[in-house]
Amino acid sequence: MSSPLEYAQQHRAEHLTELKDFLRIPSVSTQPDHAADTARAAAWLAEAMKTAVLDNVTVIPTAGHPLVYADWLHAGPEAPTVLIYGHYDVQPAEPFAEWHTPPFEPTVKDDFLYARGASDDKGQVYVHVKAVEAHLKANGRLPVNVKFIVEGEEESGGANLRAFIPENKALLAADVALVSDTSMISRDLPSIVYGLRGMCYMFLDITGPARDLHSGSFGGGIDNPLNVLGHVIARLKDPAGHILIPGFYDKVRPLAAEERAVLSQLPLDQVAWLAETGAPQAWGEPEFTLVERLGARPTLDVNGIIGGYTGPGGKTVLPSSVHCKLSMRLVPDQDPQEIAQLFRDYVQSIVPPTVTVTINGRGGAPATITDRHIPAMQAAVAAIEASFGKKPVFMREGGSIPVVGQFQEFLGLETVLMGFGLPDDRIHAPNERFYLPNFYRGIETSIRFLDNYDHQAR
Amino acid sequence: MSSPLEYAQQHRAEHLTELKDFLRIPSVSTQPDHAADTARAAAWLAEAMKTAVLDNVTVIPTAGHPLVYADWLHAGPEAPTVLIYGHYDVQPAEPFAEWHTPPFEPTVKDDFLYARGASDDKGQVYVHVKAVEAHLKANGRLPVNVKFIVEGEEESGGANLRAFIPENKALLAADVALVSDTSMISRDLPSIVYGLRGMCYMFLDITGPARDLHSGSFGGGIDNPLNVLGHVIARLKDPAGHILIPGFYDKVRPLAAEERAVLSQLPLDQVAWLAETGAPQAWGEPEFTLVERLGARPTLDVNGIIGGYTGPGGKTVLPSSVHCKLSMRLVPDQDPQEIAQLFRDYVQSIVPPTVTVTINGRGGAPATITDRHIPAMQAAVAAIEASFGKKPVFMREGGSIPVVGQFQEFLGLETVLMGFGLPDDRIHAPNERFYLPNFYRGIETSIRFLDNYDHQAR
Repeated sequence: MSSPLEYAQQHRAEHLTELKDFLRIPSVSTQPDHAADTARAAAWLAEAMKTAVLDNVTVIPTAGHPLVYADWLHAGPEAPTVLIYGHYDVQPAEPFAEWHTPPFEPTVKDDFLYARGASDDKGQVYVHVKAVEAHLKANGRLPVNVKFIVEGEEESGGANLRAFIPENKALLAADVALVSDTSMISRDLPSIVYGLRGMCYMFLDITGPARDLHSGSFGGGIDNPLNVLGHVIARLKDPAGHILIPGFYDKVRPLAAEERAVLSQLPLDQVAWLAETGAPQAWGEPEFTLVERLGARPTLDVNGIIGGYTGPGGKTVLPSSVHCKLSMRLVPDQDPQEIAQLFRDYVQSIVPPTVTVTINGRGGAPATITDRHIPAMQAAVAAIEASFGKKPVFMREGGSIPVVGQFQEFLGLETVLMGFGLPDDRIHAPNERFYLPNFYRGIETSIRFLDNYDHQAR
Repeated sequence: MSSPLEYAQQHRAEHLTELKDFLRIPSVSTQPDHAADTARAAAWLAEAMKTAVLDNVTVIPTAGHPLVYADWLHAGPEAPTVLIYGHYDVQPAEPFAEWHTPPFEPTVKDDFLYARGASDDKGQVYVHVKAVEAHLKANGRLPVNVKFIVEGEEESGGANLRAFIPENKALLAADVALVSDTSMISRDLPSIVYGLRGMCYMFLDITGPARDLHSGSFGGGIDNPLNVLGHVIARLKDPAGHILIPGFYDKVRPLAAEERAVLSQLPLDQVAWLAETGAPQAWGEPEFTLVERLGARPTLDVNGIIGGYTGPGGKTVLPSSVHCKLSMRLVPDQDPQEIAQLFRDYVQSIVPPTVTVTINGRGGAPATITDRHIPAMQAAVAAIEASFGKKPVFMREGGSIPVVGQFQEFLGLETVLMGFGLPDDRIHAPNERFYLPNFYRGIETSIRFLDNYDHQAR
């Protein structure tokens, strides 16, 4: 009989093969064409949970993509309960031409597994499924109670899980939440994220004439929605990175001197970081350090624009309309609904009467901060140190995991963000990958966390 | 034996059938996929010229799409020579979904012929081919010498005709140029265009990071090329329509009080004009009237933007790059090369060092003005009045016909712009159409013009 850690080490090849099967399913939640694939990914994950000997494995239908639930609750009445969250949906893979290997044909090269979703978040979800399996197969039991809730809409706003949580508080009741959907600071430096930015995503449609007009016959007499969009974008954020929406910063919690000091200790190699992006230089609010700007300051980025003639060569049109997607990353204590309203009011106020504007918002999540001193945090620190050979540092992460705020609000849970990704995993971009040593160490870390948390929490 | 006018009236049905065949060929010069179609349109037109009993019909190869040349030079040494110009290429038909009938399946509905190129410019080129045929079939001769030069790159910059003209001055030598590539002011009011705007078309590519980045992980630390583009657009033209490129207006010839008075007499129905566009309201430089802004003032319009994620739903990317097409309509005496250079210098000066910018220009043509008092102008006035039952008014047109400036510069020719289009022909837009009574009256006008010009010019 082997220990859970031995079990995990003995089954590495199978675990990789299984993960590749999971990654072959193009579960792009935001694209209607992939709805069936997304459902298929949920069913696949449910099967994997049954293989892991979890109880009550259930694919829960929603108005959108299903949730996958499973649990094991036999650790005894004294034992704490961990709610493990992740998502089985993935970002769109476009632009396909920039992938060196097909996004949904997982490919191992050197120590990396290349596929859309490898790091965000299928690989990291699977870490915990395999950790639980290792305990259950090796010992027939888990040191603590465990619940899994895995959604299929993280990349498309998470509206249905958001509706599910307040309606299912008993089902999801736990002592702490565990989420692996973030990155370590570098390959050699494990880290625990204690702060996440929030999100407010907006869609802007500006329409001028009812149809594309000849720019010679009508130019000078009819306003151009693409020129108008330029003015709108320019008035949303100044070139130095200050957001110009009135009231936008009103609720931003000032960074305490103590926290600025902690963040200033983070060993970010700015040269390597910049090289990884390929941008000519770093940029952002001059009043804040790069680390602060990346995790502790709000942003406003245009995510996409399409309008007018975009084929080869030129076309002298005065275009009818333009579509613009943009999103704001929020920090404590900005309220996403309030920010959305400030955005709407401001854009409506600056758009001229020569065009019409339609503003739609999607989802929205507040930023979150987790107390670094709770037992689960300490259990995570010890598990990471044992598995990676190095004590993790604490950091704030620029991304958004909306469910963390909901766990706090509806279930009263703090969340441990135990990320096994790396900054150069290219999540949301072509050639996404997962560093395979982190897949295996991640499983070991999760095995140890469940042991440690049992010990710490009692 | 019938007269040329009788011949034209007796063959209306055949002429329409032939034009439909011409329009079925998708000769979109700007799209490489349609290169073979464009060549096919040239060959088709050459055959039609042979049918019209023209001499020396030649398809002249160029580095791009071919030119079609033909002539009839037997009117005697005293007779003047008319150089008739047009183009057999068409604008792209995108967006296809907005067409009510297929763009390359010509469809007659009520008095209109719907197809891409029906008005711009195949239908108007064909008017003159049929007028010449009417003379030659009815009388065996033309009252004046005639040369045709028809290009296949008017919608894609016309670079090869531009190179051809100075090299072939003898071949193209004439006394006046005749061009039908413009519109009448309304169905009930024929008009002759005496001024055309020039054109300067630019392509702008702004690149930030080398690949799309996660807007959470990198947002706030790396500048966003789509936000930068917004600032660039906002700094090119103010919301009231004033172009902000330093030096842009330096060479604009001021509108004389006498010409402003003439233009103020043009019976533009602003309500009907606005309704045709579907825009909420008219717009433009408050210091100028709508008629002035549409024909006699320069413009800057963004023609298309594509960048970042443009599929369904949202994607939280910090995009690598954005492509923007934009064009400026010029007026006398702006020089397109100089304007292109002012544009480049200015954009380079305002783009921040956090991104790289690539600026490419295409073609370029100066604005032109034709003397209203030359004999050919008076011949055109009389021919239009006889065919339409109404004396034409003189107007300036906002579009650009680059070849007119080249005729003036290299061949010393004034150009008569005898347009048979209508303002609601939807050229460059979905559901382009040609008003069929204007097709038939256009042929009669051209027949009469050749008679009148012979008379006037001697």
